[in-house]
Amino acid sequence: MERKTLITESPDAKGLIAKITNICYKHQLNIIHNNEFVDHASLRFFMRTELEGYFNDETFLADLNDALPDASSSKLISSERKRIVIMVTKEAHCLGDILMKAYDGALDVEIAAVVGNYDTLASLTEKFDIPYHTVSHESLEREEHEAKIVEIVKQYEPDYVVLAKYMRVLTPNFVKQFPHKIINIHHSFLPAFIGAKPYQQAFDRGVKIIGATAHFVTDDLDEGPIIHQQVIPVDHNFSAKDLAHAGRDVEKAVLTKALSAVLEDKVFVNGNRTVVL
Amino acid sequence: MERKTLITESPDAKGLIAKITNICYKHQLNIIHNNEFVDHASLRFFMRTELEGYFNDETFLADLNDALPDASSSKLISSERKRIVIMVTKEAHCLGDILMKAYDGALDVEIAAVVGNYDTLASLTEKFDIPYHTVSHESLEREEHEAKIVEIVKQYEPDYVVLAKYMRVLTPNFVKQFPHKIINIHHSFLPAFIGAKPYQQAFDRGVKIIGATAHFVTDDLDEGPIIHQQVIPVDHNFSAKDLAHAGRDVEKAVLTKALSAVLEDKVFVNGNRTVVL
Amino acid sequence: MERKTLITESPDAKGLIAKITNICYKHQLNIIHNNEFVDHASLRFFMRTELEGYFNDETFLADLNDALPDASSSKLISSERKRIVIMVTKEAHCLGDILMKAYDGALDVEIAAVVGNYDTLASLTEKFDIPYHTVSHESLEREEHEAKIVEIVKQYEPDYVVLAKYMRVLTPNFVKQFPHKIINIHHSFLPAFIGAKPYQQAFDRGVKIIGATAHFVTDDLDEGPIIHQQVIPVDHNFSAKDLAHAGRDVEKAVLTKALSAVLEDKVFVNGNRTVVL
Amino acid sequence: MERKTLITESPDAKGLIAKITNICYKHQLNIIHNNEFVDHASLRFFMRTELEGYFNDETFLADLNDALPDASSSKLISSERKRIVIMVTKEAHCLGDILMKAYDGALDVEIAAVVGNYDTLASLTEKFDIPYHTVSHESLEREEHEAKIVEIVKQYEPDYVVLAKYMRVLTPNFVKQFPHKIINIHHSFLPAFIGAKPYQQAFDRGVKIIGATAHFVTDDLDEGPIIHQQVIPVDHNFSAKDLAHAGRDVEKAVLTKALSAVLEDKVFVNGNRTVVL
Repeated sequence: MERKTLITESPDAKGLIAKITNICYKHQLNIIHNNEFVDHASLRFFMRTELEGYFNDETFLADLNDALPDASSSKLISSERKRIVIMVTKEAHCLGDILMKAYDGALDVEIAAVVGNYDTLASLTEKFDIPYHTVSHESLEREEHEAKIVEIVKQYEPDYVVLAKYMRVLTPNFVKQFPHKIINIHHSFLPAFIGAKPYQQAFDRGVKIIGATAHFVTDDLDEGPIIHQQVIPVDHNFSAKDLAHAGRDVEKAVLTKALSAVLEDKVFVNGNRTVVL
Repeated sequence: MERKTLITESPDAKGLIAKITNICYKHQLNIIHNNEFVDHASLRFFMRTELEGYFNDETFLADLNDALPDASSSKLISSERKRIVIMVTKEAHCLGDILMKAYDGALDVEIAAVVGNYDTLASLTEKFDIPYHTVSHESLEREEHEAKIVEIVKQYEPDYVVLAKYMRVLTPNFVKQFPHKIINIHHSFLPAFIGAKPYQQAFDRGVKIIGATAHFVTDDLDEGPIIHQQVIPVDHNFSAKDLAHAGRDVEKAVLTKALSAVLEDKVFVNGNRTVVL
Repeated sequence: MERKTLITESPDAKGLIAKITNICYKHQLNIIHNNEFVDHASLRFFMRTELEGYFNDETFLADLNDALPDASSSKLISSERKRIVIMVTKEAHCLGDILMKAYDGALDVEIAAVVGNYDTLASLTEKFDIPYHTVSHESLEREEHEAKIVEIVKQYEPDYVVLAKYMRVLTPNFVKQFPHKIINIHHSFLPAFIGAKPYQQAFDRGVKIIGATAHFVTDDLDEGPIIHQQVIPVDHNFSAKDLAHAGRDVEKAVLTKALSAVLEDKVFVNGNRTVVL
Repeated sequence: MERKTLITESPDAKGLIAKITNICYKHQLNIIHNNEFVDHASLRFFMRTELEGYFNDETFLADLNDALPDASSSKLISSERKRIVIMVTKEAHCLGDILMKAYDGALDVEIAAVVGNYDTLASLTEKFDIPYHTVSHESLEREEHEAKIVEIVKQYEPDYVVLAKYMRVLTPNFVKQFPHKIINIHHSFLPAFIGAKPYQQAFDRGVKIIGATAHFVTDDLDEGPIIHQQVIPVDHNFSAKDLAHAGRDVEKAVLTKALSAVLEDKVFVNGNRTVVL
């Protein structure tokens, strides 16, 4: 017996759950866990079903294809460990958290490689026997720099690219090579404090809470669909530097939580929003 | 078109979701929201489905009855406002919160009456034009006292009885008249600090968090299935009295949140645990 | 023996705590609780000291005045219950929460009156035997309308004016009559979603957390010093309407928490930020 | 100029803050941050003052000694990095978190060594160039085993011993060698679910929240003064195993937060409670 996850997106229609679960039943697949959601605004239907049994992927998906509306799509995902490439600049906390959680089993993922525009984090990465590539952006045009990174990233055929405090803006050209496959951690509770120095902005505004946002990257770095957000309370004792320090804990917590949901195929993109089942 | 909620409990079996959603489809009922849960330990299946359409309750339930295993049960619940009777002693905060939320629409419920063993909360209750019954326990045997309360409560035919800081222990005889229909707020994060003076106990132990627990009442007051729990951080500045004061906010938040879930038919009893769909 | 709270603001200087506590000691006043904060950016010093003993306010403050730098200020505040006037429009939840908490003792405050631009909340207010004034804005210029409100508010001589979902923008002229005395609840986690329809904005952006902000009102309604903020997690199941509904709980929690801190003289204005001791 | 932290404990008396801050002023020491607390139950006074200036420790402490009551004690602690020894069994998550946070600077500490009763975590420890000592308990009496550990730990002269999921009960004899110097993480929200298998107990009771507790170790492993506690919400979807898995994140967060407070000299033991300034 195997376990697989069925992912379905479709225009909403009557009887979708019945049709899908009928086909699971017909194939003698046991439903371990099931979630679905209808967006009554966009009339889109999303369903995630963990199945157990003996799978014939081809006939199963063909049956679904016959039963569901034309514009729908279904994927059957095996429970193999997914592969990521992590991109970093100089800060260790997000990378360190992913490395440690992959090591101790809290995060079920294969870290294929880490790519940094500085070599600062090479020695940390290599402690865990993971290849580190330094691709300096110095004296390179942005396009050249990105082309070098793309070349390296692609050779690892990652399921996802994780920006773990990669501090350079990516061009649309880079982004479109990994559509909905790039996850970024933004160091603010978006949409507040978009842009540079969010902790200084938070200090200046005197907020009593700071947060972080994990999102898919689209053409505009801070505007992609939000996967997860988390906050912590702060007070007048926090300088801008203290805010940044405290923010690190939230940043890594948010990024690994979002990554975990993505790796378990729980995150659907729904326009500029996400559905997390 | 109407909206109703279908509630199903059953021994687990293959194809249950398919069978139930097929019947919904056959009856041309649209699934607005659906949740289900299989307890893989007890092999029990729980499902809650919000439906929209034109209902023929009798044939719909008959179809379900035919399709589902023998020991299963299904209920189709209309969206009519439910009726509660609240029991109190002297503290105003939980009663006050329910009164206000029922008044401003945050809680969709009809408060049929309030019964107290003191008259302390009569004037608060009557501000909202709700009948208040004082049933003093003084000079009465426990059984006599409870019999008087039962008589009053029953005449209102409540869907649920809410113990909003009713500070007397109920006998099994009282409880069995309202099986899984009595909701209590316990002023501690159960199972810690069971029994009297939980805030003094919390102070003595020097805990850094206090909480409250809403649960169904079974024969043993503090041991019924937990519906909801919530906590707040505290510190060395809190005296036992401060803890009690701070605890009130959590108590009322937990009670109204639990009550809200129960009123929306989201809470299933699963042995001594609950499933909240 | 009496209890009073000493509030001191001063440019920072060496020995301030020693000077202030020396004078308390000299006057045989016992320090029950003490907090102070130095803003190392603005070099401002803030101190809040709860004292117990026999007070001679005049000589005590004169001693402080002699000892502290020229630009400092000290106030000795008796523990008398403070008086507020609440301004509302149509939504009941924030007003209801303050009424109930004042009633049950959770909030130690005298609600002198409620002023609304509609009469929607008159009956709720009057349940608690508090005068309600309807001052309709219809067919009035903004200045005329505000002048009528100011006249009513001032006759109650409130310590603070609380905007409990008062949905009209106040003019600088109104604001300057109650400097740092007006507390507003804004229905978003400022600075995100400034302006109208924050819940629709939050929905459109697909955020996973919503919040509310209590702040002092300055000339610009949403830009005054923040007193308190709180958030709740939300997800894809929340429509814009659900967000608004869920937001009400946060709004009232934030407003009463901020109000409570202000009433206990814990909140200092520090430029556009607050210090909450 | 140097920074040091003054730690004072004393029976409560009038004028203590004045006396202490006077002496700071006399020595031309600037108060950067100050907190104090009086336990009105035990009549104990606790104060923590961050000072900046040119220190003459001897005369400063002598002045304090003269000014303060007999039974008081003062310590002046330099800002040197403190040293810890970590004790573990097999689980990596707490050790990993401390290693990573010491590496990336989030935790300002020197990890002198790790001691485990298995060699499971040797390779993780050694990635960070920290010595790992395996002291197997097999075929040893408890006292012999502990004696071996004590010998190793003592040679590193640690400021604190951190039990990062060390799963063996320590004898009073061990504990008394490091009075108030041993910090343990207990995998439950104490005092609920004391003892073995707390997550199975939590599952059986059907709680909706789980937590973890960091505390100083006294003679009874689960009964020492609590330093910090934290919780996370759980629901019916969590098996006992899922609870344990989710609990790991709380355990490490609680342990590192408690450790951080202890390392900054913020934690005072007050009977069986703590004061965290």
